[in-house]
Amino acid sequence: MIIVLKPHTTKDDVSRVENMVKKRGLDTHIVQGKEMTVIGCIGDTAKVDSKLFEIDSAVDKVMHVQEPYKLANRAFHPEDSIINVSGVKVGGDNLAMIAGPCSVESYEQVLEIARAAKASGANLLRGGAFKPRTSPYSFQGLGLEGLDILTAVKEETGLPIVTELMSDKYLDVFNEKVDLIQIGARNMQNFDLLKELGQLDRPILLKRGLNATYEEWIMSAEYIMASGNENVILCERGIRTFESYTRNTLDLQSIPVLRKLTHLPIIVDPSHAGGKWWLVDSMAMAAIAAGADGLMIEVHNDPESALCDGAQSLKPKKYDELLKQVAQIANVVGKSI
Amino acid sequence: MIIVLKPHTTKDDVSRVENMVKKRGLDTHIVQGKEMTVIGCIGDTAKVDSKLFEIDSAVDKVMHVQEPYKLANRAFHPEDSIINVSGVKVGGDNLAMIAGPCSVESYEQVLEIARAAKASGANLLRGGAFKPRTSPYSFQGLGLEGLDILTAVKEETGLPIVTELMSDKYLDVFNEKVDLIQIGARNMQNFDLLKELGQLDRPILLKRGLNATYEEWIMSAEYIMASGNENVILCERGIRTFESYTRNTLDLQSIPVLRKLTHLPIIVDPSHAGGKWWLVDSMAMAAIAAGADGLMIEVHNDPESALCDGAQSLKPKKYDELLKQVAQIANVVGKSI
Amino acid sequence: MIIVLKPHTTKDDVSRVENMVKKRGLDTHIVQGKEMTVIGCIGDTAKVDSKLFEIDSAVDKVMHVQEPYKLANRAFHPEDSIINVSGVKVGGDNLAMIAGPCSVESYEQVLEIARAAKASGANLLRGGAFKPRTSPYSFQGLGLEGLDILTAVKEETGLPIVTELMSDKYLDVFNEKVDLIQIGARNMQNFDLLKELGQLDRPILLKRGLNATYEEWIMSAEYIMASGNENVILCERGIRTFESYTRNTLDLQSIPVLRKLTHLPIIVDPSHAGGKWWLVDSMAMAAIAAGADGLMIEVHNDPESALCDGAQSLKPKKYDELLKQVAQIANVVGKSI
Amino acid sequence: MIIVLKPHTTKDDVSRVENMVKKRGLDTHIVQGKEMTVIGCIGDTAKVDSKLFEIDSAVDKVMHVQEPYKLANRAFHPEDSIINVSGVKVGGDNLAMIAGPCSVESYEQVLEIARAAKASGANLLRGGAFKPRTSPYSFQGLGLEGLDILTAVKEETGLPIVTELMSDKYLDVFNEKVDLIQIGARNMQNFDLLKELGQLDRPILLKRGLNATYEEWIMSAEYIMASGNENVILCERGIRTFESYTRNTLDLQSIPVLRKLTHLPIIVDPSHAGGKWWLVDSMAMAAIAAGADGLMIEVHNDPESALCDGAQSLKPKKYDELLKQVAQIANVVGKSI
Repeated sequence: MIIVLKPHTTKDDVSRVENMVKKRGLDTHIVQGKEMTVIGCIGDTAKVDSKLFEIDSAVDKVMHVQEPYKLANRAFHPEDSIINVSGVKVGGDNLAMIAGPCSVESYEQVLEIARAAKASGANLLRGGAFKPRTSPYSFQGLGLEGLDILTAVKEETGLPIVTELMSDKYLDVFNEKVDLIQIGARNMQNFDLLKELGQLDRPILLKRGLNATYEEWIMSAEYIMASGNENVILCERGIRTFESYTRNTLDLQSIPVLRKLTHLPIIVDPSHAGGKWWLVDSMAMAAIAAGADGLMIEVHNDPESALCDGAQSLKPKKYDELLKQVAQIANVVGKSI
Repeated sequence: MIIVLKPHTTKDDVSRVENMVKKRGLDTHIVQGKEMTVIGCIGDTAKVDSKLFEIDSAVDKVMHVQEPYKLANRAFHPEDSIINVSGVKVGGDNLAMIAGPCSVESYEQVLEIARAAKASGANLLRGGAFKPRTSPYSFQGLGLEGLDILTAVKEETGLPIVTELMSDKYLDVFNEKVDLIQIGARNMQNFDLLKELGQLDRPILLKRGLNATYEEWIMSAEYIMASGNENVILCERGIRTFESYTRNTLDLQSIPVLRKLTHLPIIVDPSHAGGKWWLVDSMAMAAIAAGADGLMIEVHNDPESALCDGAQSLKPKKYDELLKQVAQIANVVGKSI
Repeated sequence: MIIVLKPHTTKDDVSRVENMVKKRGLDTHIVQGKEMTVIGCIGDTAKVDSKLFEIDSAVDKVMHVQEPYKLANRAFHPEDSIINVSGVKVGGDNLAMIAGPCSVESYEQVLEIARAAKASGANLLRGGAFKPRTSPYSFQGLGLEGLDILTAVKEETGLPIVTELMSDKYLDVFNEKVDLIQIGARNMQNFDLLKELGQLDRPILLKRGLNATYEEWIMSAEYIMASGNENVILCERGIRTFESYTRNTLDLQSIPVLRKLTHLPIIVDPSHAGGKWWLVDSMAMAAIAAGADGLMIEVHNDPESALCDGAQSLKPKKYDELLKQVAQIANVVGKSI
Repeated sequence: MIIVLKPHTTKDDVSRVENMVKKRGLDTHIVQGKEMTVIGCIGDTAKVDSKLFEIDSAVDKVMHVQEPYKLANRAFHPEDSIINVSGVKVGGDNLAMIAGPCSVESYEQVLEIARAAKASGANLLRGGAFKPRTSPYSFQGLGLEGLDILTAVKEETGLPIVTELMSDKYLDVFNEKVDLIQIGARNMQNFDLLKELGQLDRPILLKRGLNATYEEWIMSAEYIMASGNENVILCERGIRTFESYTRNTLDLQSIPVLRKLTHLPIIVDPSHAGGKWWLVDSMAMAAIAAGADGLMIEVHNDPESALCDGAQSLKPKKYDELLKQVAQIANVVGKSI
């Protein structure tokens, strides 16, 4: 941590700020520049609220030099983490190909989509049982019944299931039945929930919040990890920007950046990012070309009648064509489906 | 709802899309322009997923003409709602002056601050018992003990209390003890929690999410209202933008805009928006000048030692000076503290 | 400037980076932390491209500790600058009340508006002769004829004129005839134009770019000042954010922030920020309550027939009422119209 | 254009608004819904300022249904435009591979880089002669001398040159010497300059402004085209968002979106978007996978000593490796370098 003092500070000013720092168990180191003085703070700065020093009238600003996360930090864990989702490896050279409908509507629907997706190369099945909807008047998902349908389809197809948890009320049932528990963008900073996920055995798929910086996103993973569950997969799904033609702006730079900052795998959800099916294939290929560890794509056998997000779903035939191209791109970057 | 067709559509295209609309129980009305055709959809469009129509190859785009919220909509409730918070009225010409420390640290601390704030004109006491913190390594609040301290100070001072609920585990105790239940920016779209708030008797203070549009914010209020609790107060606390010198960008245009769109009261939290104490007074005065129904301000007797957000807290003396100026501004716009 | 090295750097790494720094004429100071090493760079860092050091494999990141601007920096000029616009003082306790139509349409139109605005308290007349329009098919302004009309109305009313310069082709005629030369948001980083403005005698009204940080905005003022013209007034007119209900998001926190960072006056344009006339009065009052040095407001005698931006213009009667309230708010913060 | 009226409008309200519309030469068509009335406006709405109608007290909002651009609109020009840059075709299946240093420093420097880049597959040479710099104290480019160096290197290597024009002062010399005239992000809405570019024979490379929507960007191309020059290539270079770890957020969704909206070619500049050399290769591959018509990449033989943006430049060896991978990705999507 670096404390930058205002120009024209006196010796007394410097001593006073130094004392504030030392009272919090840190050492100090003064750097005297031509026009300004800087105090380097040495020790475990992660637990100190740095903004506090800005109250002092001699302080201009306080800057962090160290990332606030430890367990998720690649600097301390240079190797890629490979997460085991009920037998499917994610990370390293292993791609997660997650496919399925936005929301679970019936056993027949999910089974048909799952079989087709598996034939095309999908290795994990997604489907929403509990749906976060902006409007209280929209379809909210089948709930526990949806979970049962997913479980039945898993038995039939062998595909492990991925579905979103929205409330701690269902922690136990999700821990029992769901292979990869998804936390949606809107709950990325539901800190109480994050702590409880740390108690579970199941891996967590943590979507990026619509306004989350890379650091905040990794800090949410750190919450889960610090609570005891180190099996976290990150999922880029677009951020909110001024551009409203697309639902969100897919930030593919997140892939190389997170690769540098953290050892956790990162996958991409092009369906939710753009909100339009005709954006999915180009963004899916781009994500793999950029080094993503997998894709999460909405597939629906009858998008025009879907109860949710049909406009961004691919039909099974289109998904099949896409995965053929994705496989070729994966090959160029040294991976395979 | 308006469906805009692509140029050069055939009669068959128009009929096909019309049929899709009618299947969902809506009437249609064709507007034939020079270069394009538009289908007006008549009926209760709130429950129809408009994006679905974009799947059809003849459709260019779908536009909403009607707000998706009803209960919160001023068009159907022209009068200002006035919310009663344990005897303190908020809305209309009644200003909520909420003050207190970011986090509850001890009975003595809260009592001292509460007494000073009340003497300056505050009519509601805030204090965080459960704290949403970006880092798992930061102070997380005193929890239920904090709630007990607030209750004790309320008994002593008579000030109703405002504090943040982060998890449905504590719904009952909050409903019993807390006069105004705050939902933080990060939980604004925790839809499960919103539905449960609809079951409570207590009024809700709903902060704007960092990336929430006006419509999304009102839709979250609508969730609470549609579940049975119409006592919602909105709180602008800044949005996330590209400008990072301040913590967030305080959007004071939200005041006249929400006044037009909804009948619910709207207050402003200048402390969290800027994240720096020296921004609070000018923004507090600006908020009242713009017509806000109240202010939520962090006050601390010893900011340098605060366990949380000391950098944005005012000392009681400064708060007292501010409220004198705020009272004069309120007077200009026809209100009073 | 602070160079943060990666964990586990060797002595050789540190020496190599130190040498890179010294080659650019700076001194170094090493701060050895528990987990990381930091190099403080001492000297005139403003001319060094700090990002260069990030190329070295041992460097984690480079952070600036010093503002890159000098002439506009309050740290070196503690007194408020007061800019003289042909006799009208702007800054300190002097408010600029700029009013007039979005675009000049005719002598009669401008004269009628100018007389009414002056009677209400306006002390500067605005009107667009050259108009920056998003569409090539929109009305582009009367050009030099518009400038002549403004000049004629100035002779009649005595109000100095403010109008936008869009191209260096007209530098001479603007320098001759225009009292305060406005540079629009879209030209805030037209660096060639900024340098030429430094050659003029006239004060400059520099609007904030839609995506400009405070620092970039001040740096554009620094361009003009470093080229020889220190008479710059800053104008907040809203920034682009994800919220699209309003044209832009008015950032009133810019007022206290700029007050701290620079000695230049800052005024606010609420008409362009919101793009709707019914947002103007609350934001105008808020701006003055927040400490702005003036307001720039569009006034039109017949908004329904305006050739440009009628939707955000106030009628003279409404402007008159507004200025009465603004005068009272100004009084609370120690200023007067 | 669609005018949405407020609930509870009277017949008189509807007639009054209809008359406003008809006065502007448009026809009207009334759609009477359950709760609201909508007026469809038929005719050439591109020249009508739609916001004007919002002034009427009965009008709730006005919505555009038609894109405001014609010449750049794919709806009216279904075929891809292929732009000829002094013999190098851009668009369709032809990729532009633009490479070179951020700024021209010397003949030897540019020649060495150009030869290496050409050997790797580059077909166009970039290099900045006039540099837009945020700080007036940074290196501003060699100016006309830089242009002469580029011309000399073009003679030696045969590579057509791409360089940025910042001021209309140099229109003639650019038109004579530069094969593809670049307009930078900060000048994307310098409308006066855009109009003058319409008079030139040379193709234009129009970078996206940092805060430009797709529509605004295309409208700037429309300015150039409407003034007489239809040879415009669009260049995505990142937009400004809340994420500040990277310089900007590269928006690769722009590729499929623009492909749908316009027939103009679109290339991607991954160097400026991220601002870090280690982001370039993954984003370059992603861009081609997403269907871009080319790449603009900074290559420097000695980045540590570069006068500008060395941190984002690739060394020739790295560029060579990248183009080998890019060629394979291009192959997957049916294109070739």
